[in-house]
Amino acid sequence: MKEFNTQPPSGTRDFLPEDIKNRERIFSVIKQVFEKFGFLPMNTPAFERIENLLGKYGEESDRLIFKILKRGEQATSGDADLALRYDLTVPLARFFANYQNQLPCPFRCYQIGPVWRADRPGKGRFREFYQCDIDVVGTSSLLADAEVILALVKSLSCINLSGYVVKINSRKVLAGLLEIYGIPKDLRRDTLTAIDKLDKIGVAGVVKELKERGVPETILGKIREDLSRDGVELRSAMKSSRISKEGLKEVEEVTALVAPLLTNGKIEFSPFLVRGLNYYTGPIFEIYLKGAAGAIASGGRYDNLIGMFTGKQIPACGGSLGIDRIISSLKLKDESEKDRLAPQVFITVWDRASRPEILRIATELRDKGIVTEIFLEEGKIGKQIRLASKRNALYCLFYGPNEQRRKEVTLKNLSTGEQKNVKLDRIAKTLKTLLQRR
Amino acid sequence: MKEFNTQPPSGTRDFLPEDIKNRERIFSVIKQVFEKFGFLPMNTPAFERIENLLGKYGEESDRLIFKILKRGEQATSGDADLALRYDLTVPLARFFANYQNQLPCPFRCYQIGPVWRADRPGKGRFREFYQCDIDVVGTSSLLADAEVILALVKSLSCINLSGYVVKINSRKVLAGLLEIYGIPKDLRRDTLTAIDKLDKIGVAGVVKELKERGVPETILGKIREDLSRDGVELRSAMKSSRISKEGLKEVEEVTALVAPLLTNGKIEFSPFLVRGLNYYTGPIFEIYLKGAAGAIASGGRYDNLIGMFTGKQIPACGGSLGIDRIISSLKLKDESEKDRLAPQVFITVWDRASRPEILRIATELRDKGIVTEIFLEEGKIGKQIRLASKRNALYCLFYGPNEQRRKEVTLKNLSTGEQKNVKLDRIAKTLKTLLQRR
Repeated sequence: MKEFNTQPPSGTRDFLPEDIKNRERIFSVIKQVFEKFGFLPMNTPAFERIENLLGKYGEESDRLIFKILKRGEQATSGDADLALRYDLTVPLARFFANYQNQLPCPFRCYQIGPVWRADRPGKGRFREFYQCDIDVVGTSSLLADAEVILALVKSLSCINLSGYVVKINSRKVLAGLLEIYGIPKDLRRDTLTAIDKLDKIGVAGVVKELKERGVPETILGKIREDLSRDGVELRSAMKSSRISKEGLKEVEEVTALVAPLLTNGKIEFSPFLVRGLNYYTGPIFEIYLKGAAGAIASGGRYDNLIGMFTGKQIPACGGSLGIDRIISSLKLKDESEKDRLAPQVFITVWDRASRPEILRIATELRDKGIVTEIFLEEGKIGKQIRLASKRNALYCLFYGPNEQRRKEVTLKNLSTGEQKNVKLDRIAKTLKTLLQRR
Repeated sequence: MKEFNTQPPSGTRDFLPEDIKNRERIFSVIKQVFEKFGFLPMNTPAFERIENLLGKYGEESDRLIFKILKRGEQATSGDADLALRYDLTVPLARFFANYQNQLPCPFRCYQIGPVWRADRPGKGRFREFYQCDIDVVGTSSLLADAEVILALVKSLSCINLSGYVVKINSRKVLAGLLEIYGIPKDLRRDTLTAIDKLDKIGVAGVVKELKERGVPETILGKIREDLSRDGVELRSAMKSSRISKEGLKEVEEVTALVAPLLTNGKIEFSPFLVRGLNYYTGPIFEIYLKGAAGAIASGGRYDNLIGMFTGKQIPACGGSLGIDRIISSLKLKDESEKDRLAPQVFITVWDRASRPEILRIATELRDKGIVTEIFLEEGKIGKQIRLASKRNALYCLFYGPNEQRRKEVTLKNLSTGEQKNVKLDRIAKTLKTLLQRR
C-alpha cells in the first residue's frame, strides 16, 4: 500500500473541535466590533485571475503567490491562469470596481477569510492564515484612516488584548526622506525594501544592504545616523521637503484624531515604517502587542489601487488584523458555548430492537434543543458509559428491558451518579428542568 | 492603462452585504442542527498534497481538481504539488488518520467550507461552492448512516425546506446487479459511470453509452428493461446474488430506522442510484427537493477510504448538504439581524474642528452597542442627510455651532422627521431608550 503523508501541507493547519470553538468566538467578537463601526460584510472567491494579482504587491510578494494550473486541454502547458488571493485588499479593489454602482459611497466594508502566501513557514508564520480586513472606499478624508485604526484597536480590546502600540508613518514621509538623501530615482524602491527590514536586520544590516544595492557611500552615513534617531528628532530635518511635510501633516492629523481615544495603548510616529506592499500611497500603520513577535495589525491608504481596476482614481484606506499568530493563546471566557462541544445527553443502546424508539427519543430531545448523542455500535453498557464520560456528557439515558416494560427511561447524572426514572412522554421536559438547574 | 476584467473568475461568485447576512443565518442554523446531533466541528486547509486527492474520486473527477504550481526554483517546471480540496470527505479521512489518538471513537464531526471543482460552470453549478459535511468515523453500525440522513433532513426542515425525497441505494446492490447481468469485471466501473447519468440522459442514453463502452448486445436488453422498472419490482430479481441481497438488507435497515421520523418528506429505494465518487462501499443516498434541479444533499458509506491513509480499515459514513444552488431563494426571517446592515445612528460632521468630539461620541455609542456611522467627507449637511437615508440609518445626529454652544446634540428620527435636543452626557442613554421603543 502506498504510504500517504497525513500531516496538513507545510505551513497550513488542521483545527480540532476545541480550536474551532475558540476561533469562532474570537471572529464573532471582531465582526461585532466592525459592524458597530458601520462596516458591511462582503466576500470574494479564494482565487482571482492571475493578472489581477500580479504587479500589485511588489516583486518579492509576487513570487509568494500560489498559482493555479490551467485545466482541460491546457493542463499540460504548465501555465497558470488563476492564483489564490494573497491579501483581501486587491480582491476588494476588484470587487468595488465591479459593483460600485450598487454600493453606498463611501463604502465601509469588512471581509474575514483566509489568504495564502508561499512564505517559508516558521513559528507563527503560516501559508494559509486568516485576515480580518476593514476598508473605507471612496473618500480621501483622514477621518477614514482614523476610523480604521480605532476599529482595529477596539477589536483588540474586545478580545482582551491591551498594551498595544500603533506605529504610524506616511509613504510621503519616506518619499521626502529619499529626496532629501538624494537617492537616485531608480534606487528608491530598493532603498525602501532595505529599510523595511530594519526590525529584522538592524541599522548595520540595512546600511550593508543599501551599499550592496548601490546606494552611494556619501549618502550612507546620513542614513545610518537617521535610522538611529527617533521621530521627534527627525521632524525638523524633514521640513526641507514639500512631500515630507505633507506626509508629516497627515501623520499629525490622524494621530490627533486617534490618540485621545486610545484607552489601552498608544500611537507613535515611526518615520522608517515602510509596509512591504507596493500599493500604499499615504498614511501607513502597524500595531504591535507587548510580547508578540511581529505586527498584529497593519494597513494604510492606497489611493491608486482601485483606479487600476476602474480607470478612474478612487481614494481608499484600510487595515487588517491577523490574529493567527496569537489566537491559540487567546481564551475568551464563555462557558455556555464551551459546553456545547459535549453532548448534554448520551443515549445508550440496549439491543437492536430498541433502536427505532431510541432514535425517536433522540429526535424529540434534539427538537427541544438538547444536544443528544446516541451510542452507535452494539456494545456492553459499561463500555457505552465509559464513552459517555470520555465525551463529557452530562446525562446518560438508559432504555433497557425493565424500562421498556414500564414505558420509561433511566436518566443518570454522570457527575453525581444520581439516577431517576422518567416516563417516556416526560423525558424532554424533565431534562430541560435538570439542565436549567445546573 | 491595462484593462482588467473585474468579474469574479468563471464559476465563482462575489457576495454583497445582503447576500452574506442571509448565508450566515442559514449556515448558523445548519451548524446548530449538527451540534444538536452531537457532531463536533473540525477544519482542514483549502489545499492538500496532490497525491492525497488524486485517485480517490475517480478519473473524471481527478480531471476537475484545481492543481497548484510548485513554487520557488521549481516554479518553471510546470509541475503541481498541491491541489484545492475537491470535497470535504477525503480531507477528513486524512485528518482522522493524523489525529485518531486524540479523537473520540466513533468520531462524529462536521465541517462547513468551500470546495473547488473545475466543472463547466452553469446555472446553479459553481466552481467554488460550500459544502456542509457531517461524518461518523469508526463504526460500521447502520445507525450511523441513519443519523447522518436524519441530521441532513432536519437541517433542511430548519431552513424551511420541506417536501424532500431521500433516494437510497447500496453500492452492494449495484455490484450484485452487474454480477447478475454478467458484465465483465473490466467493464463494471464504466457501466456504473454510464448508469450514473440516467437522470441526465435517460434510459436510451445510458444504453447507447453502454454499447459504446463495449457492453455486449446480449446484456443490453435486460438492462434497458430494468432501468425502466422501479425498486419494488427489482427486489425479487436481486435475490439471486449474495452481494445484492446484502445491499438490499442494508437499504431496508436504514429505511426502517429513518422512515418513521421523516415528517416533511419520504425515503425510497432507488436501485440505479450510483453516486459518482469511487470511494463509496455501502449504503448511498441523495436528497431531492421538489422544484430544485439536482440533489441538494448526498452521501454514503466509505469503509475503505480512511484505510488508504491509516493502513488499517476504519469504517465511516457521511453526507453533505450543498445549498449554494438554492441559497439565494432561501430567506430566513430575522428582522433584528437584518437591521444590523444599516447604521442605527449616522453622525453628521459640521466642521473639521468638531471631528475629535464627534469621534468621542461615536466611540461612546459603539461601546454601548449602538451601530454608529460617521460622515467622512467634508460636505453640505443636506448631502450628509441624503447619504444617511440611503444607508437606511434610523437616526441622524447633528453637532453644529448652536449645539456646540449649548453642549448638546440634535437627534433626528429619519422616518418621522421628529427632532430632539439631548445633552452631551445623555446621548447614549437617550438613544438606547429610543431604539428599544421601536
